[in-house]
Amino acid sequence: METHIFKSPPVKIGFSDASMVSRATKSDQTLVNVKGVEIGGPEVVIFAGPCAVESQEQLYETARSVKADGAKILRGGAFKPRTSPYKFQGLGEEGLKLLGLISMKTGLPVVTEVMDTRQVEKVSEFADILQIGSRNMHNYPLLKEAGLLRKPILLKRGMMATIEEFLLAAEYILNQGNEQVILCERGIRTFETSTRNTLDLSAVPMLKHLSHLPVIVDPSHGTGLRWMVPAMAKAAVAAGADGLIIEVHYKPEEALCDGQQSLTLFEFGQLVKDLRKVARAVDREIS
Amino acid sequence: METHIFKSPPVKIGFSDASMVSRATKSDQTLVNVKGVEIGGPEVVIFAGPCAVESQEQLYETARSVKADGAKILRGGAFKPRTSPYKFQGLGEEGLKLLGLISMKTGLPVVTEVMDTRQVEKVSEFADILQIGSRNMHNYPLLKEAGLLRKPILLKRGMMATIEEFLLAAEYILNQGNEQVILCERGIRTFETSTRNTLDLSAVPMLKHLSHLPVIVDPSHGTGLRWMVPAMAKAAVAAGADGLIIEVHYKPEEALCDGQQSLTLFEFGQLVKDLRKVARAVDREIS
Amino acid sequence: METHIFKSPPVKIGFSDASMVSRATKSDQTLVNVKGVEIGGPEVVIFAGPCAVESQEQLYETARSVKADGAKILRGGAFKPRTSPYKFQGLGEEGLKLLGLISMKTGLPVVTEVMDTRQVEKVSEFADILQIGSRNMHNYPLLKEAGLLRKPILLKRGMMATIEEFLLAAEYILNQGNEQVILCERGIRTFETSTRNTLDLSAVPMLKHLSHLPVIVDPSHGTGLRWMVPAMAKAAVAAGADGLIIEVHYKPEEALCDGQQSLTLFEFGQLVKDLRKVARAVDREIS
Amino acid sequence: METHIFKSPPVKIGFSDASMVSRATKSDQTLVNVKGVEIGGPEVVIFAGPCAVESQEQLYETARSVKADGAKILRGGAFKPRTSPYKFQGLGEEGLKLLGLISMKTGLPVVTEVMDTRQVEKVSEFADILQIGSRNMHNYPLLKEAGLLRKPILLKRGMMATIEEFLLAAEYILNQGNEQVILCERGIRTFETSTRNTLDLSAVPMLKHLSHLPVIVDPSHGTGLRWMVPAMAKAAVAAGADGLIIEVHYKPEEALCDGQQSLTLFEFGQLVKDLRKVARAVDREIS
Repeated sequence: METHIFKSPPVKIGFSDASMVSRATKSDQTLVNVKGVEIGGPEVVIFAGPCAVESQEQLYETARSVKADGAKILRGGAFKPRTSPYKFQGLGEEGLKLLGLISMKTGLPVVTEVMDTRQVEKVSEFADILQIGSRNMHNYPLLKEAGLLRKPILLKRGMMATIEEFLLAAEYILNQGNEQVILCERGIRTFETSTRNTLDLSAVPMLKHLSHLPVIVDPSHGTGLRWMVPAMAKAAVAAGADGLIIEVHYKPEEALCDGQQSLTLFEFGQLVKDLRKVARAVDREIS
Repeated sequence: METHIFKSPPVKIGFSDASMVSRATKSDQTLVNVKGVEIGGPEVVIFAGPCAVESQEQLYETARSVKADGAKILRGGAFKPRTSPYKFQGLGEEGLKLLGLISMKTGLPVVTEVMDTRQVEKVSEFADILQIGSRNMHNYPLLKEAGLLRKPILLKRGMMATIEEFLLAAEYILNQGNEQVILCERGIRTFETSTRNTLDLSAVPMLKHLSHLPVIVDPSHGTGLRWMVPAMAKAAVAAGADGLIIEVHYKPEEALCDGQQSLTLFEFGQLVKDLRKVARAVDREIS
Repeated sequence: METHIFKSPPVKIGFSDASMVSRATKSDQTLVNVKGVEIGGPEVVIFAGPCAVESQEQLYETARSVKADGAKILRGGAFKPRTSPYKFQGLGEEGLKLLGLISMKTGLPVVTEVMDTRQVEKVSEFADILQIGSRNMHNYPLLKEAGLLRKPILLKRGMMATIEEFLLAAEYILNQGNEQVILCERGIRTFETSTRNTLDLSAVPMLKHLSHLPVIVDPSHGTGLRWMVPAMAKAAVAAGADGLIIEVHYKPEEALCDGQQSLTLFEFGQLVKDLRKVARAVDREIS
Repeated sequence: METHIFKSPPVKIGFSDASMVSRATKSDQTLVNVKGVEIGGPEVVIFAGPCAVESQEQLYETARSVKADGAKILRGGAFKPRTSPYKFQGLGEEGLKLLGLISMKTGLPVVTEVMDTRQVEKVSEFADILQIGSRNMHNYPLLKEAGLLRKPILLKRGMMATIEEFLLAAEYILNQGNEQVILCERGIRTFETSTRNTLDLSAVPMLKHLSHLPVIVDPSHGTGLRWMVPAMAKAAVAAGADGLIIEVHYKPEEALCDGQQSLTLFEFGQLVKDLRKVARAVDREIS
C-alpha cells in the first residue's frame, strides 16, 4: 500500500476512550481470518450475495456464481431489520439453515446479521461472521454479547454515527475480549436524497488512520442504486478499503428485499474484472 | 386546544404502512393512563427526574421536590446506553429497585429505559412506563417485545429518524397489540454543533396531525444546555406538546451523567410556574 | 422577560472573531427602529405580507388586512431568488415601486430582499429594511454593501449555516458601521423531508444569549406548510423571539410563489389573536 | 470508460426544469476547451495551485513545480470568501495581475474565483476559467452574469446543495448562452466533524449520469486534511471524475489560507504518479 505520503500526525478527535481500537495503542494492522480468508491484508476481499436469503435455489445459484467470479465470503440475511412491520422480515432460523447448507456446498464462509441478544447463540451456530447492522450499532447489550464470542464481527457504521461513535461501538466489542472486528462504511444520512444514503468514502482513510481494524465498504446500501454500485466500488478500493460487501441476486427483479440495488450475476462478474485493475493500481490484489 | 386554523388536508408523506398509528384510521386522540395520570388530554404532563438513578438519597430528594412543584411522573435511568464503554452504565437492577421504592414513597409513577429484550420482564416489574430510547428506536425485536406488554411505552425518536420512520417504529408496537404508546421528540442530529441536538419542535404538530398518539418533548437532551431548557420547554408547550420530560438533579454538578443539562430543583420549580402561564395561553393546563 | 433562570455562563463556541455582534462586547440589547416600530424591545413585532409582490391589488389588499390585524411591517419580494431559472423571478423594479406605493398608502414600513450588490442603491430607495436572504448569507460583498448603508438589515440564516457562521455574517455588516441588524431564523436543512426545512427554534435563545441583536423567526419558510405555521409561530414567541415574519396572501391558491405556505387573511387574523395570549404568558406584548 | 454495466434507466429525480444541462436533451459529452486543455475527454485534468495568491514567488514556485508534475491548470484565489471578516480576504486586483503574469510565464491557464457581479469583467480579463464558489452557487445574479460570458465557468457545488439544485444552478448559466460549464464536487455539510466536509463521491457518477457537463472533484476542501487528499483523489478518479482540483503550496506551514489541507510540492508530485496508475485502471489517462 502506498503510505509514503501519510506522514502527518493523527487527527485529534477527542476519543481517548477508544483505546483498544486505536492505532496509537496497537500499530500493527489487525488481520481477521475467516476459514483461511484473511481480511486486512494485501487482498481486497469481496463479500457478495443477496440482501435476504429467500430460497435454496436463490442462495445456491447466487453463491456459486459469485464464488466463480471472485467473491470470498457469502452474505445473506436471515433476520432482516425492516423499517415497516409489514415488509418481509426474513426467513429466520430457516434462513440460517440454508446459509449453513450453501456454505457447506460452496465452501464459502457466510456472514449474516444478528439483531437480538437472544439470537446470538443460534446465529453463531451457522454464521462464520456475525453482522451487527447499522440500526444496531448503538445497541450496547448486543455489542457486549458480540464481544464475548470468539467469532469475527462485521460492524456496520450507524447511518447517523460519527467516526468517533463508530470506533467507540467497536471498543465495546474489543473491551469484552473479541478483537476480530471488521468495520464497514455503508453510507450516512444527509440532506441529499438522490442516493439512498451518502457513501462517506473518507471514512476509509480516516478509520484506517485511527484504528488497526480492517475496513470494508458497502456500495449497495451506500447508494441504493444498482447502476452506481460499480463506480463507488472502484472508488472504495482506490480509497484503500480492505474489502467490499456487495448485494447480488440471481433475479434482482424478483428480490423480496432491495432488488433495485442488487447487481445481476453478470454485472457482478464484470465488476470484479474492473476491480482487479483498480486494486493493482493501488498495490492491492483481488485473487 | 385551538384547532380552528388546522383545516388543510393531511400532508402526504408516503407511509401507507403506518396504518394503526394513523389519525386517518383512528381519529380520536389516544389517552395513555398511568395510575390515574392521563397523557394526551387537556393537561400538559410533566415527567421529571435525574438522568440516571445514583442513590436513594439522590432519587428521593429529587422526586419529592419535583412532585411538589408539579411533576406527575418520575424519570430515572437504571440501564444507561452510553457511547463509551468506560462511562457510568447505570446501577442496573439495583437502580430498578430504587425506582420502585421511591415510586412507592412518593406516589409518583416511574418511567425507565429498557435496552435489551432480555430485560423487558425485569424492567416491567418496577416501571410504570417503559422507555425505548433514541438509540433503540430501530431495534425491532425490542419494539415487538414492547408491543406484547400491556404497559405504556415511551418511544423516543431516533436521533436521525424521519417522522415516517418514527411512526413506523410505533406501528411495530401497536401491531403487537399495545396501543399505549407515547411519542417523544428529543432532538435530531444536524450539522449544528452549538446545541447537543437540534430540537425539532415542528415534529409536535406534525406527529399530532398524522397520529392519534400523545406527543411529549425532551428539552434536556434536545438542547444539552441547562440554561436553554426553559425557553425550549415553553416553546414545546406552545407548539402543542402533551407533556415534557425534563432532567432534574438535586446536585447537578455531582451528577454521574448529563449534569450540564440537568436543572436544579429550584430552577425546575421556577420553570413550572412559567410553563403554567404558557399552557393557559394555548388552552391547556398544568395542575 | 423572564431571565431569572439564565444564570449559567455563556456557552463557549469558538468565535472570538465575532466581537461586534457579541453580548460580551455590548451587553445592552440593540433596538432597531424602523419609522417608529421598535424591534428588540418588549413588543413582539409581526412582519407579514406575500412571498412575492404580484400586483397592486394583491399587495394592497394583503397589506391593509394584515395591518388591521396587528402586523407592523409589510414584507414582499420584488427580486426573488428561485432555484430554477424557469420559475417566476419577481417583478423587479416594478415590484419595488408597488412596495413604495403601498407603504405610503398604508403607513406600513416595508422589507424586501436584495440579491445583488448592484441593486443595493435602488432597493434602498424603496425599502425601509433590506433583507439579505438565506441563499446570500455567505455573500460577503453584499454583506459589506449592507454594512455601508444606514438602514436596517434583516439577515436570514443560511439554510445550512451554523450559529457561529450566522453571527460572523452579521459581523461583516456591523464591521462596516451598520449596527441595525435583525437576525432571522428561517429553518435549516436536515435529513427530515416532511417539512420544507427544520425550524431550529433553539437558535432563538442561543442567538439572544450570544448577541445583542434582535432575533425574529420565519415559520412560513421554516415549515413550508400553511397549517403548521400557527403552532410554530406560537412556539417561536414562547422561545423568546422578538418578532415573526409570516407569509400571508389574499388568495394563496393563486399565489405565484409559495402559496402552500401562505396564510389566508382570515387565518392570519386568528393567529395574531392567539399569539397575543402567548406573548403575554412570556411577559411580552403584541399591540 | 467502462460503461458496459450502466444500463439502467436514469434515476427519476424531479427536475424537468433542468433541461439544458440534461443528458436527456444532449447525449454527447460536453468538452470544455481551455487554451488547448480539454476537460471532459479521456484525460483526467489536474488543476493545482495555492488556496490564495500571496506573492509572485509563492505563485511562481508552486506553478512551475505543479506543471512539471503534470498539472494542466493553475488555481489561485485573488478574492477569497472568508467566514470571518477578520481573516485574510485575498490580494484582490493585485492577485489577478499576478495570476496573469504567472500564467504567461508558465503557459498554464488559470482559474480564479469571482464573488461579485461587479467583478466579473475585471476577473475575466485575467482568468481563463472563472470559478463560482460553493458559497455563491445560489447567487443567481452572478450565475446569470457568468452565463453571458463566453469563457468557461467552474461551478462548485454549494455545501448545502442537492444534486438537483446544483444542476439547476448550472442551468442558469447555460440558459444565458454559456455551455462551457465544469461542475465541481467539493464536499457537503453533514453531521460528521472529523473531516472539514463530507466529500460526496457518489455525486460524480450521478452528475455524469444526469448531465453532459464535465465533473471534477476537490479533495482538498472535501476533506480539509492534507494526509487524506491522496486517498480521496485516487477514489475520485476511480469514481469517474474528469478532473481534480488540488491545493498545493510551496510552504504549506506559511500559507495565509488553508495550509492544513495543502499538499507540499513533493507530495503533489508523488500523488500524480499514483493517480496515473488509477486513471489507467479505469481506462483514463493523465499525461
